[in-house]
Amino acid sequence: MKILIINGPNLNLLGKREPEIYGSQTFEQYFEELKSKYSIIDLEYYQSNIEGELINKLHEIGFYYDGVILNAGAYTHTSIAIADAIAGIKTPVIEVHISNVHARESFRHHSYLSKNCKGIIVGLGMDGYRLALESFLK
Amino acid sequence: MKILIINGPNLNLLGKREPEIYGSQTFEQYFEELKSKYSIIDLEYYQSNIEGELINKLHEIGFYYDGVILNAGAYTHTSIAIADAIAGIKTPVIEVHISNVHARESFRHHSYLSKNCKGIIVGLGMDGYRLALESFLK
Amino acid sequence: MKILIINGPNLNLLGKREPEIYGSQTFEQYFEELKSKYSIIDLEYYQSNIEGELINKLHEIGFYYDGVILNAGAYTHTSIAIADAIAGIKTPVIEVHISNVHARESFRHHSYLSKNCKGIIVGLGMDGYRLALESFLK
Amino acid sequence: MKILIINGPNLNLLGKREPEIYGSQTFEQYFEELKSKYSIIDLEYYQSNIEGELINKLHEIGFYYDGVILNAGAYTHTSIAIADAIAGIKTPVIEVHISNVHARESFRHHSYLSKNCKGIIVGLGMDGYRLALESFLK
Amino acid sequence: MKILIINGPNLNLLGKREPEIYGSQTFEQYFEELKSKYSIIDLEYYQSNIEGELINKLHEIGFYYDGVILNAGAYTHTSIAIADAIAGIKTPVIEVHISNVHARESFRHHSYLSKNCKGIIVGLGMDGYRLALESFLK
Amino acid sequence: MKILIINGPNLNLLGKREPEIYGSQTFEQYFEELKSKYSIIDLEYYQSNIEGELINKLHEIGFYYDGVILNAGAYTHTSIAIADAIAGIKTPVIEVHISNVHARESFRHHSYLSKNCKGIIVGLGMDGYRLALESFLK
Amino acid sequence: MKILIINGPNLNLLGKREPEIYGSQTFEQYFEELKSKYSIIDLEYYQSNIEGELINKLHEIGFYYDGVILNAGAYTHTSIAIADAIAGIKTPVIEVHISNVHARESFRHHSYLSKNCKGIIVGLGMDGYRLALESFLK
Amino acid sequence: MKILIINGPNLNLLGKREPEIYGSQTFEQYFEELKSKYSIIDLEYYQSNIEGELINKLHEIGFYYDGVILNAGAYTHTSIAIADAIAGIKTPVIEVHISNVHARESFRHHSYLSKNCKGIIVGLGMDGYRLALESFLK
Amino acid sequence: MKILIINGPNLNLLGKREPEIYGSQTFEQYFEELKSKYSIIDLEYYQSNIEGELINKLHEIGFYYDGVILNAGAYTHTSIAIADAIAGIKTPVIEVHISNVHARESFRHHSYLSKNCKGIIVGLGMDGYRLALESFLK
Amino acid sequence: MKILIINGPNLNLLGKREPEIYGSQTFEQYFEELKSKYSIIDLEYYQSNIEGELINKLHEIGFYYDGVILNAGAYTHTSIAIADAIAGIKTPVIEVHISNVHARESFRHHSYLSKNCKGIIVGLGMDGYRLALESFLK
Amino acid sequence: MKILIINGPNLNLLGKREPEIYGSQTFEQYFEELKSKYSIIDLEYYQSNIEGELINKLHEIGFYYDGVILNAGAYTHTSIAIADAIAGIKTPVIEVHISNVHARESFRHHSYLSKNCKGIIVGLGMDGYRLALESFLK
Amino acid sequence: MKILIINGPNLNLLGKREPEIYGSQTFEQYFEELKSKYSIIDLEYYQSNIEGELINKLHEIGFYYDGVILNAGAYTHTSIAIADAIAGIKTPVIEVHISNVHARESFRHHSYLSKNCKGIIVGLGMDGYRLALESFLK
Repeated sequence: MKILIINGPNLNLLGKREPEIYGSQTFEQYFEELKSKYSIIDLEYYQSNIEGELINKLHEIGFYYDGVILNAGAYTHTSIAIADAIAGIKTPVIEVHISNVHARESFRHHSYLSKNCKGIIVGLGMDGYRLALESFLK
Repeated sequence: MKILIINGPNLNLLGKREPEIYGSQTFEQYFEELKSKYSIIDLEYYQSNIEGELINKLHEIGFYYDGVILNAGAYTHTSIAIADAIAGIKTPVIEVHISNVHARESFRHHSYLSKNCKGIIVGLGMDGYRLALESFLK
Repeated sequence: MKILIINGPNLNLLGKREPEIYGSQTFEQYFEELKSKYSIIDLEYYQSNIEGELINKLHEIGFYYDGVILNAGAYTHTSIAIADAIAGIKTPVIEVHISNVHARESFRHHSYLSKNCKGIIVGLGMDGYRLALESFLK
Repeated sequence: MKILIINGPNLNLLGKREPEIYGSQTFEQYFEELKSKYSIIDLEYYQSNIEGELINKLHEIGFYYDGVILNAGAYTHTSIAIADAIAGIKTPVIEVHISNVHARESFRHHSYLSKNCKGIIVGLGMDGYRLALESFLK
Repeated sequence: MKILIINGPNLNLLGKREPEIYGSQTFEQYFEELKSKYSIIDLEYYQSNIEGELINKLHEIGFYYDGVILNAGAYTHTSIAIADAIAGIKTPVIEVHISNVHARESFRHHSYLSKNCKGIIVGLGMDGYRLALESFLK
Repeated sequence: MKILIINGPNLNLLGKREPEIYGSQTFEQYFEELKSKYSIIDLEYYQSNIEGELINKLHEIGFYYDGVILNAGAYTHTSIAIADAIAGIKTPVIEVHISNVHARESFRHHSYLSKNCKGIIVGLGMDGYRLALESFLK
Repeated sequence: MKILIINGPNLNLLGKREPEIYGSQTFEQYFEELKSKYSIIDLEYYQSNIEGELINKLHEIGFYYDGVILNAGAYTHTSIAIADAIAGIKTPVIEVHISNVHARESFRHHSYLSKNCKGIIVGLGMDGYRLALESFLK
Repeated sequence: MKILIINGPNLNLLGKREPEIYGSQTFEQYFEELKSKYSIIDLEYYQSNIEGELINKLHEIGFYYDGVILNAGAYTHTSIAIADAIAGIKTPVIEVHISNVHARESFRHHSYLSKNCKGIIVGLGMDGYRLALESFLK
Repeated sequence: MKILIINGPNLNLLGKREPEIYGSQTFEQYFEELKSKYSIIDLEYYQSNIEGELINKLHEIGFYYDGVILNAGAYTHTSIAIADAIAGIKTPVIEVHISNVHARESFRHHSYLSKNCKGIIVGLGMDGYRLALESFLK
Repeated sequence: MKILIINGPNLNLLGKREPEIYGSQTFEQYFEELKSKYSIIDLEYYQSNIEGELINKLHEIGFYYDGVILNAGAYTHTSIAIADAIAGIKTPVIEVHISNVHARESFRHHSYLSKNCKGIIVGLGMDGYRLALESFLK
Repeated sequence: MKILIINGPNLNLLGKREPEIYGSQTFEQYFEELKSKYSIIDLEYYQSNIEGELINKLHEIGFYYDGVILNAGAYTHTSIAIADAIAGIKTPVIEVHISNVHARESFRHHSYLSKNCKGIIVGLGMDGYRLALESFLK
Repeated sequence: MKILIINGPNLNLLGKREPEIYGSQTFEQYFEELKSKYSIIDLEYYQSNIEGELINKLHEIGFYYDGVILNAGAYTHTSIAIADAIAGIKTPVIEVHISNVHARESFRHHSYLSKNCKGIIVGLGMDGYRLALESFLK
């Protein structure tokens, strides 16, 4: 089983940026833990701050992989282009948000991506990525 | 660990109602599977179609249990009273929806409950309840 | 032919409440007239002020009866849960309003129920229930 | 008793236009059935695609007839002028829609006419015209 | 003089729930103080978390009592049915809110009940119930 | 000086329709008075209930007359086509309303025509037509 | 006959401010012409840039004068207090605007005052004041 | 204890203006009654129709008095400046409205002041001022 | 191949009306050029300012012709009835606008017709009609 | 004559992505056909999924080429930056959409680009690019 | 060079009011520092809490001074009258806000004044006035 | 002191693009002047049309520099991702706009960035960058 985790803008700052919202662990540390725990899965990781590069990556792997776990960060709320990319590929996508976006500013309550995703996991911290993996395993 | 699953209005029709959206398994069957799989958890189940009874149940167990998994059905989108009940109790609540509410009518895109919940799991089918359990176990 | 008339909140006050809008006949009196006039139909009546009890009743009879005539009163404008119950059952439902809701406050102009009902009859007084019966007979 | 049925724009296409929504019977066929069934009523029929001609007709008969059954088609949602004509005449008007407009596009959910009409019958097919007659007979 | 105080959803948690907003006194303690202070009034108290039970209670006493003091909690902002019940009874109702709802979330700024009430007292703490009594005494 | 008064839909009912809003004088009577009072002006009158006929008339005289006094009735609030006709001709147009449209339903508060007119006179009764004449004379 | 013309904020700049919108005549010059032309009327003039002073003036003369001609300038669009003052006095008020406010920014399209005024004259230049006088004479 | 009652625009017309809404007693008469009844309080009264003078008065006494009872009339709905003045001073303010503003035009349903006030009393007539005093005494 | 060009309100003024927006050529001149250039097509032209006549024409030819090129002018933005006529016929319709409606007033940005048309060509001047022909030829 | 066709996000998937909406031909195949058919034009093609690269390309050629045919995909609905780039260059741009965006989700009905473009061609399939070429040739 | 600094409502409380937002320095102290630092400028200061007095002052100096630095406080968000005064005078105006209004309540995000001002400086504390001076010097 | 000026999309066209709005000087020329004038500051410049590259740059320097002066061009109005980057770094950011965005299209009136910035300078031309420097020096 081949799964790609994609993180969008500012998630490279995890551990550095607003730790009261996102925690102090870097994503790389977390990813290593996850990989060793779910060694039966061929798990990869990609991050970019550029909307179009996220689309490029979805196109590149979206007809071959078994699942994508996507935290598109702020592009979640503004990018119809990423939503179209999700609709355009075959690989199912699960949308993940670390913080509870519904408890934050109102412009974070709407996601252009959700309706094209298989499912959405919100507010359960880093553990949301693991739950998405669990869902794909099922 | 004591966890209560609460289902709101019309979820007693699971297996009967619109199976193309909700699947054909009854919740009772699913609940038995879940219970036997997670036997280390003291897992209970409650369902009511009456908004105020859902509130009563949250009050009743909300200072003693370790977690609530709540699928409030249509009350999700209209009930400030249930949202207040969640805010008023100590037990953390994870909101679950079986179908992808963001791919349905626009009045299902907003949840009054989300901002008071620990997290939200949407669109991953019955398996969403299991993932919520996994999150509490963590 | 088995038909159930369901009245929602405050309709138990008919004959008592705001007679300039709703007339001075009680619903029980009207129901007796209707029953004797349409004796070929197995006609029943249920009223509750509790949203969830209306849902319970719809579930209870909604796979066996030939028709429901529903005046959900103020829940018409606020209850997605009742709308879901109508969608979830097999029995067709005709929505009835005694007064012309479109000539009253703007929050009475929208019905969550209408799109899931077979038809809607508005503003024709108590006679609306009879017209709904006529429609089912057809 | 003198009753006029008025049909607005595109209803001359009945039986031809979108039969999955409106059925395959022409209105003329239906009208003949209705007339013979309710022979005690002096029943007439008028159709026009021109908004102002509908107003002209309402003015012409609106101080002499006992009732108008009006299906103003799409003008229902855009014509304040027809609404004013209904308010300006003495004859009571019942608004009829063949399809369930509330289950279609959102711009069909609002009627400028309803608040000036005696009542509204929606979604019960051609039979809606008969129910309106029944209401006037009452 | 016969006065009923009605409290709606979650107000049974007073003293327990979010004390920084609602204070730490239970309503029962406060009610006893009030009763002894205004012994000339025949004062009663009712609480329910169920919207329809609040309506039932208003119907039951609403043609006999001299006044109702109603804190409908979150139903204030969502219940047209309770607003209709207030309009349908003879007994005047004063709406009370313990906290200043206008200093909280925007969905708490609108009350469906206010326009049918005699008056509204907001943000003056538990003392608001007493002031309502004072107003009825006047 | 050549001036045309144009009246739109339902204004042929003046004296008959809702006299509490529009008074009991017919427009023809008023027009004769006006003509004899302002005999130096070549004054004409046209009325139609058909939007397109109002446009036809504006086109027909709109490059030759010195002024148009237009009461477009309900089309005021819905007709971009008439607004375009006013913009497309050379003759200046003064918009007149007999009743105070701003004291009526909110959908009467907006006029598509106003921005293309020389001026607007509202709520001064039949006398508004005379004041428009006075303005053209100036 | 006693008539007061009241001008609101910035109208003291007439002849100076944006002459392409308001013309180059000062209001004082215009007022003198008007007074000599309508010598049978006891005509007065008041201007203030202070909202509350306009209210004071309306109160002061509003139970004795036969008419007020009010151009409240920008307060037209923001002052409920002046609207209340108009409703609170006995003297009828005609609202005048020199420019065509409907052809300018959208925030100038709404007037709080209009619904409480006898009539409104817009866009006919300084001559609008004279037309208002003509209306009062009538 | 030093308390100031401040009345805003048009409240000087009390007893004169729209008595069906506001009653026929002048505020001065009412104030004398109140003063003699609550002689233990050092009670003063101020009225102005000028928004900025209300602000001046709040600044002048707002660091020395024990309470302000403010009925800002129509400025309630439009004045962020008065709201800021309330936030800027130390003296607590109770907002009072004589009529039930929620049963009137929709632009009277929102108050800029409420969120900065200690509490709000609406629709209980002149007696609202007394209840505010009672609250301060508490 | 049989194609009908239909022009709606005010397009008979082409060459006369606002030439800075629409150019100075009359449509009749342009139509003759087009006809001689595309002599293999049986090309016809119809214009009316009356909404209902446009509908009549669509009904008349809409089951026999191979294509309609429709510039409905201002009715584009207001006519659900014409949109229904397009949906009700078999002949495909291409919507054309001479000017760039998206660079004009915001009420010209929405078209009720577009969703029922085969395609839309906007802002390319008179040439837009030719391009629509080209599309039908394809 | 030098013309550049620019395709935005996800249009590299043409022939692969949602063929029921976009057809099964790749854009490269179509482009070759177009090039050989219009050999008199110096025709080039550029595609990127990155918003800023589309802007870079517009800047690069936008002072030298004779025309741009731009299908900005989903950026059409979200990118003010591309709209600014179009306004900032000299080369005229024609906006093309393959599918009828007005018959899809409402967020696809608005284009930030349209008002800065020479014209817009929508819903005519791949052929829309050819029609744009035809327009430039004219 | 003659420059006037105008401060609007509640800014006389600077140093006293909400020091966590506005700092603890009085404006008079700050003004003296500024004056001595920019002694080449003829610098004056005016403050009023009355909207109309701010307008009076703008009129008084607005044809003679070289610049106005205006902090209109809360009137920024509600006063079309001050915006008109700025448009009506010749002296250029720079709008200054001490706090970052965009990080506060949403009703502080819109300024009626901005579009008529030369520029706007927000959130840079007292130093904003100095920067405005620097801009005028340039 | 280390300061970086960042310019967003289309600002590389300065001097070329719409000179009536932005002036005819290139930014590079202006930057050299600024650098020589403020030689005590270590001043750098970066421009990109790619949203994600602006974010990359903010991350790269945002924990080391003393200030960022950011003109994000059109991304100001659409990019929550850049706003998040500003919130995520330590270096304070001043937002600058050359033109008065509040005097242009309404979609330019809202900035997602402002609430996370130290301050905002709008409409003062190129000089706005210098004023931002002055503010950092302070």
